[in-house]
Amino acid sequence: MTGKKIRVKAPATVSNLSCGFDVIGLALGEPYDIVELELTETGSIEIEEIRGCETLSRDPGKNVVGAVLKAVAAAAGGLTGFRAVLEKGIRPGSGIGSSGASAAAAAYAAGRLLDDRFSLNDLVRFAMEGERLVSGSPHADNAAPSLLGGITLIRSYDPLDIVQLHIPRELWCVIIHPEAEIRTSVARGLLDTHIPLGTAVRQWGNLAGLVAGLYREDYELIGRSLVDFVAEPKRAGLISGFCDLKEAALKNGALGAGISGSGPSVFALCRGRDTAAEVMKGMSDTMVSLGTAFDAYMSPVSRKGAEEW
Amino acid sequence: MTGKKIRVKAPATVSNLSCGFDVIGLALGEPYDIVELELTETGSIEIEEIRGCETLSRDPGKNVVGAVLKAVAAAAGGLTGFRAVLEKGIRPGSGIGSSGASAAAAAYAAGRLLDDRFSLNDLVRFAMEGERLVSGSPHADNAAPSLLGGITLIRSYDPLDIVQLHIPRELWCVIIHPEAEIRTSVARGLLDTHIPLGTAVRQWGNLAGLVAGLYREDYELIGRSLVDFVAEPKRAGLISGFCDLKEAALKNGALGAGISGSGPSVFALCRGRDTAAEVMKGMSDTMVSLGTAFDAYMSPVSRKGAEEW
Repeated sequence: MTGKKIRVKAPATVSNLSCGFDVIGLALGEPYDIVELELTETGSIEIEEIRGCETLSRDPGKNVVGAVLKAVAAAAGGLTGFRAVLEKGIRPGSGIGSSGASAAAAAYAAGRLLDDRFSLNDLVRFAMEGERLVSGSPHADNAAPSLLGGITLIRSYDPLDIVQLHIPRELWCVIIHPEAEIRTSVARGLLDTHIPLGTAVRQWGNLAGLVAGLYREDYELIGRSLVDFVAEPKRAGLISGFCDLKEAALKNGALGAGISGSGPSVFALCRGRDTAAEVMKGMSDTMVSLGTAFDAYMSPVSRKGAEEW
Repeated sequence: MTGKKIRVKAPATVSNLSCGFDVIGLALGEPYDIVELELTETGSIEIEEIRGCETLSRDPGKNVVGAVLKAVAAAAGGLTGFRAVLEKGIRPGSGIGSSGASAAAAAYAAGRLLDDRFSLNDLVRFAMEGERLVSGSPHADNAAPSLLGGITLIRSYDPLDIVQLHIPRELWCVIIHPEAEIRTSVARGLLDTHIPLGTAVRQWGNLAGLVAGLYREDYELIGRSLVDFVAEPKRAGLISGFCDLKEAALKNGALGAGISGSGPSVFALCRGRDTAAEVMKGMSDTMVSLGTAFDAYMSPVSRKGAEEW
């Protein structure tokens, strides 16, 4: 058993999608993280190397991958240990599921090395331990789509119930990642602990519209539903130029745009590759005129989640 | 033009469906209200007769049908007047859209008499004026499904955006209407004006699950999603025996059960006629043992809304 090795990639994700705060996320084609994992009989978790990022700790108690592997090892029992190499393709604090992708890759890799003895829900639960370490709350709206691919709904956390939603064939996503870091915990702190019932009703009307739009492949309905009354009004101020970016997205034909996760990345959903390309150009031009460094990505919603690589 | 007559029926409806507070409703096959309407050139609204109910006022200023016809006449301009007969098949205050059905029938009948000059959204808006009169809030989650049939989502009120959701073929609904009246305004008063963000998230996770379940015809998912963290905990106490009724529904195979609208009717969603029959029997037995008088109905979700009759 020991000495077995695997190399797994898991993609970046966009959570919330404006109206689906804390319950919806989708998988992108790129960027992605890679975890190389080896099974050991030491009973210990070791992070041998982290590539592509100098700020993350290799201490397993302070690293997402370490937290996930610790949870897996505890569930597996015995002297299960792991030696990991983490290759970061996603920048920490970018708002496109950097920790979720590392966690998903680690959980998937560990599950494979342990002969697929865990269910997909188990793997999501392990990945959530990575999210707990980073943000204090064990959420799954990045880890689940990164693991499973596609567009996932976390209908319930207790019991964990993950629903794979329909993916409209022409749905593309554009990401602009301004060079700035927002800690999830800070972004969470900006939210009200209580919201007016009327606001909640408007939010869930839109979320229901979004889900219906996905199934109907009704792009107009998807666009009309991409409205956020809860998080965006509180968090938009953290992202300099957010309103300009959103305007540029819509002006260039995006169905809708909003904050990816807790930011600072901004996402735009588009119908088709050509529109996505124009939206990416329009948003990139805006960033250039703002003088802020940024990365830009576009990809169809990825049906693939974590996979051997 | 004047002297033209029409007779229209519009069905009872179940709004909220546990997790879709204020945004979702579905049309039943029965019971229903009937409006007989005649176009006049008096410029006035007259309610000639109300059959099947002795408590409703014939004063157009105090009657749902009057409020709706007044809104239609104002939009039509000139000396548009109506003479109406209302036949109540649905008991006021039952929680299955009694006012919504009267309003839908009146709006549909008036639209037809005026040569279909109004859009369906216009008709919903007219019907909402009836709801405004009765409850103080111009909601559409009963009037829209009564007018349009099927399962409707009010994604947004401003602008009004109504989405017809997919109807699973085997979806049946059982209604138990205990002989008691709950005023919508009283039931509304029990709700908190603000809800914890975490509660809202759980509610919209379930609503998203319900919508996905409808499109997938995934009856298990529909059942798991029929959970209400917002209204049911506050309102269940208004309905004596509510918990017993819900338990009886689930024990007899219902997918889920909850308060219809603001009650006192209790609905249960079921897969197929046979299960619905057993659920109706189980819930009826519970009512008998409680010693409360009641009406019981079962029907598939009706694809038909308001129609000439």
